[in-house]
Amino acid sequence: MTTISKVQTRDARFDLPDGAGSDSIHVDPQYGYGVTLLSTDDGLSGTGIAYTLGEGTDLVCRAIDILAEPLVGQEIEELMAHFGAFQKKLAEHSRLRWLGPHKGVIHLALASITNACFDLWAKARGVPLWKLLLDLSPEDVAELIDFSYLDEVLTKQQAVQILKDRKSGRERRGVVVDIGYPGYDTSVGWLGYDEDKIVENAKKAIGQGFKAVKLKVGAKDPDKDYRRVNAVRLAVGHGIEIMLDANQIWSLPQAIERGKRLNAYKPYWLEEPTQPDDVLAHRSIAQEIAPVPVAVGEAISNRVLWKNFLQAGAVGIVQADCTRLAGISEYLAVSILATRFPVKVVPHVGDMGQIHQHLVLFNHIALEHQKLFLEAIPHLKEHFVHPAQVKDGVYVTPQEPGCSTDLH
Amino acid sequence: MTTISKVQTRDARFDLPDGAGSDSIHVDPQYGYGVTLLSTDDGLSGTGIAYTLGEGTDLVCRAIDILAEPLVGQEIEELMAHFGAFQKKLAEHSRLRWLGPHKGVIHLALASITNACFDLWAKARGVPLWKLLLDLSPEDVAELIDFSYLDEVLTKQQAVQILKDRKSGRERRGVVVDIGYPGYDTSVGWLGYDEDKIVENAKKAIGQGFKAVKLKVGAKDPDKDYRRVNAVRLAVGHGIEIMLDANQIWSLPQAIERGKRLNAYKPYWLEEPTQPDDVLAHRSIAQEIAPVPVAVGEAISNRVLWKNFLQAGAVGIVQADCTRLAGISEYLAVSILATRFPVKVVPHVGDMGQIHQHLVLFNHIALEHQKLFLEAIPHLKEHFVHPAQVKDGVYVTPQEPGCSTDLH
Repeated sequence: MTTISKVQTRDARFDLPDGAGSDSIHVDPQYGYGVTLLSTDDGLSGTGIAYTLGEGTDLVCRAIDILAEPLVGQEIEELMAHFGAFQKKLAEHSRLRWLGPHKGVIHLALASITNACFDLWAKARGVPLWKLLLDLSPEDVAELIDFSYLDEVLTKQQAVQILKDRKSGRERRGVVVDIGYPGYDTSVGWLGYDEDKIVENAKKAIGQGFKAVKLKVGAKDPDKDYRRVNAVRLAVGHGIEIMLDANQIWSLPQAIERGKRLNAYKPYWLEEPTQPDDVLAHRSIAQEIAPVPVAVGEAISNRVLWKNFLQAGAVGIVQADCTRLAGISEYLAVSILATRFPVKVVPHVGDMGQIHQHLVLFNHIALEHQKLFLEAIPHLKEHFVHPAQVKDGVYVTPQEPGCSTDLH
Repeated sequence: MTTISKVQTRDARFDLPDGAGSDSIHVDPQYGYGVTLLSTDDGLSGTGIAYTLGEGTDLVCRAIDILAEPLVGQEIEELMAHFGAFQKKLAEHSRLRWLGPHKGVIHLALASITNACFDLWAKARGVPLWKLLLDLSPEDVAELIDFSYLDEVLTKQQAVQILKDRKSGRERRGVVVDIGYPGYDTSVGWLGYDEDKIVENAKKAIGQGFKAVKLKVGAKDPDKDYRRVNAVRLAVGHGIEIMLDANQIWSLPQAIERGKRLNAYKPYWLEEPTQPDDVLAHRSIAQEIAPVPVAVGEAISNRVLWKNFLQAGAVGIVQADCTRLAGISEYLAVSILATRFPVKVVPHVGDMGQIHQHLVLFNHIALEHQKLFLEAIPHLKEHFVHPAQVKDGVYVTPQEPGCSTDLH
C-alpha cells in the first residue's frame, strides 16, 4: 500500500546562459517548473512538473496547493485505476473551473499534479514510465484519460479498440527500446545568437551526431530570418533537416508571406507561425505553405482545442506537451486522438525530454505512430537527478523507475 | 494631471442565497471579483473587476500585483491615449505570457487592471463610461484596442472606418440614453430551484415588467429539463422570450439531441451547449438547431477565439464579457469585430450589468448594433455603491462618473 500522505510544492526557476532560450517573443526567458512533490507512508515520493518561463510560477504552485487537496489519503494503485475520472473531478471543480476552464494557471497546476501521480505510480511499481504504460491493458490505459468533449471523434471504447488493433507488430516495434531514436538539437539557433554562432552551433550539433536542428525565426527584420536560415542551410547541406520556429509572432498575412519565402530553404516544418488559439489561421497557413507542415503544440491548452486543430487540418506535426496539457493523461488523449488523422506526433519538451523520452516509446510501440523523433535541449541537465541521455544524436532509453523528473 | 500612485487588490467573494447561481456544472457558486484599486495623487480612485466563482480569486489578485507594476506613475490621459499598445505590452510580457497566453488567471488579471484604468479615466473626466466612449473620436477609440492577430478580419484602420461609417443616425439612436432598453431576468430558473419556484419566479419577473427570462438546462435527467421548460412556457405563454442555458455540460452529440428537442419550446437562444473552446462543435450545433441561435461568451478567453467563433458561424448571440476578456478594451475589439458578421451582441454580465449597461449604449449608438438587450441579475446589488437600476424591466442609464464598479 502506497498512500499519499503529503503534497508540497516548489517554485523552481533556472537562469539560462546568455541568449539561450530567446526567440521572437520570449526575449529573456528563465525556465521554470511548478513542481508537485508527493510523499507517501512507505517512504516513496513523486515529482511532477509543469513548464513555465519563470515569472509567475508561484501562481502555479498556489493553484497546486488548492487543487491537490483531495490527493492526501489516496492509495496510488487505487487512484490510478480510475485516474481519468479523478482528474475530471479536479478539472471540473465547480468554482475553480471558472478560472479556466481547462487552461492557464489552473490547468498547469493539473499538469504538475497529474505528472506527480504518474511518477509515484511508476516508482511504486519499480519501473520506468515507458514500461509501466506498455504493460497496461488497453482498458487500463483508457481509465487514465478523461475523454469528455471528444465523443464525436474518440470515445473511451474507441480508444480501447485503437490500442487493441495495434497490438500486432508490438514486438517488432519494441526494438526501439534497445536501439533508441533520433533527437533533434533545438538549441542551435536561438534568436539571441548571432549568425556566426548559429552556424558554428549547427556544425557542432552535426558533429555530435544530430541529423536535424531548429532555428528561431520571426526577427523584426524578415531579411535577418532569411539570411540566418540560408547561412545554416549552406553550412549543413541538404542531408540535414532544419526546423523553423516563429513562436507565435506573426499575424496570419505575415505568416503566409514569410512562411512561403522560407519554404525556399526546405524546412522540415514551420512551428508556431501565429497565435496558438487561432485554429482557422493555422488551417490557412497549413494550406498555403504545404507541403511543409505546420508544427504546433506548446501553447495549445487542452484536448478540446487539439481536437479542433486536428479536425480543421490546421496541424501537421503534433507537438503535444505533457507539462503544458493536463499532464500525461491529457497527452495520452491527444496522442490517441492523433491516430485518427494524417499527422505526426513529435512532442514539445517543456520537460527537457525527461518525460517525453518515455512517451515517444509508448507512442510508437503501442499506438503505432511512425515518426520517432524528439526535441533535445541541454540547458537544465544538471538540475535533474537522471538527466535524459542523448548519444550520437540518439535518445538512450531510461531505465530508472519513474518519470525521470526528480530534481536536485 | 491624474497620476496613478498606488495599485492595490481585493479578493472579494460573496455568498449567494440558497440555490441561486446554480447550474448544470456550477452547483454551489460564490460570486467573486479579483478587484484592482487604483489611487492617484489628486485623490481620485479607479475600481476594476474580473469575475470569478469565488475560489481561487486570490490567484487573480496575485497576478494583478505582478502585472500591474508598470501602472504606477502613469498619468491617466496619457495612458489611455495609447492604451491598446500599453495593454499589449502587459499581455505579451515575455515570461508571464507563458502562463496563458491570453487566457486563464493571467488574462483575468488583465481584465481587472484594464477596467480599473477605464473607471479612473471616466472619473477623471467626470463622466459615465458610456458618455466617455461616445465622446471619443473613432481614432481615439481604436487607440484603446490591441488589434494583434485580427488582421485578416479587422485592422485598426478598418475599425476607424467602421466607426466613421456609423456616425450618421447617431442622434436618432441616442434616444436610448433617455428611454433605456430592456433587460432580461436571468435569476428565474437556477437549476437548484424546483419547478414550482421557477414558475413562480417567471410570473414574478413578468409582473416586474420583464419580457424575457432565462432557464438553466442540462439536468442529469433530460426529462427534467423538458418538464421545467414546458412548465414555464405554459405559465408565461408565447409573448415572453425564454432563453435556455446549458453551461457547457453536454458533449456534441448530446447537445444536438437535446437542443433539437428543446426547440419545441421555442427558446430565444441556446446558451453554452458544450465546452467553450470547441469552435467546430459549436458550428455543428448552430447548424443543427437553427433557426434557434447559439449564445456563447462568458468563457471565450480572448479576441482570437472570438474571431474563430465568428468566422466559423459558431455563434449567433455574442455574449462577450469585459470582466472575462481583457477588460473593456478587448470587449470593444470583439464588439467591433462582430459588426462584420450576422450576429447579435448581448453581453454576459459577470459584472452584474454594472459596466455592460454602459457598453450596450455604445454598441448601439456608435456601432449600430441593433439588438438592445442585457442580462439583469440582482444578487450583488447591495455590494455596489451605484447598483444598476432596472425599472419595469428596463435599464435606467447611469449618470454617475466612472464604470459603476465601486464596491462598498
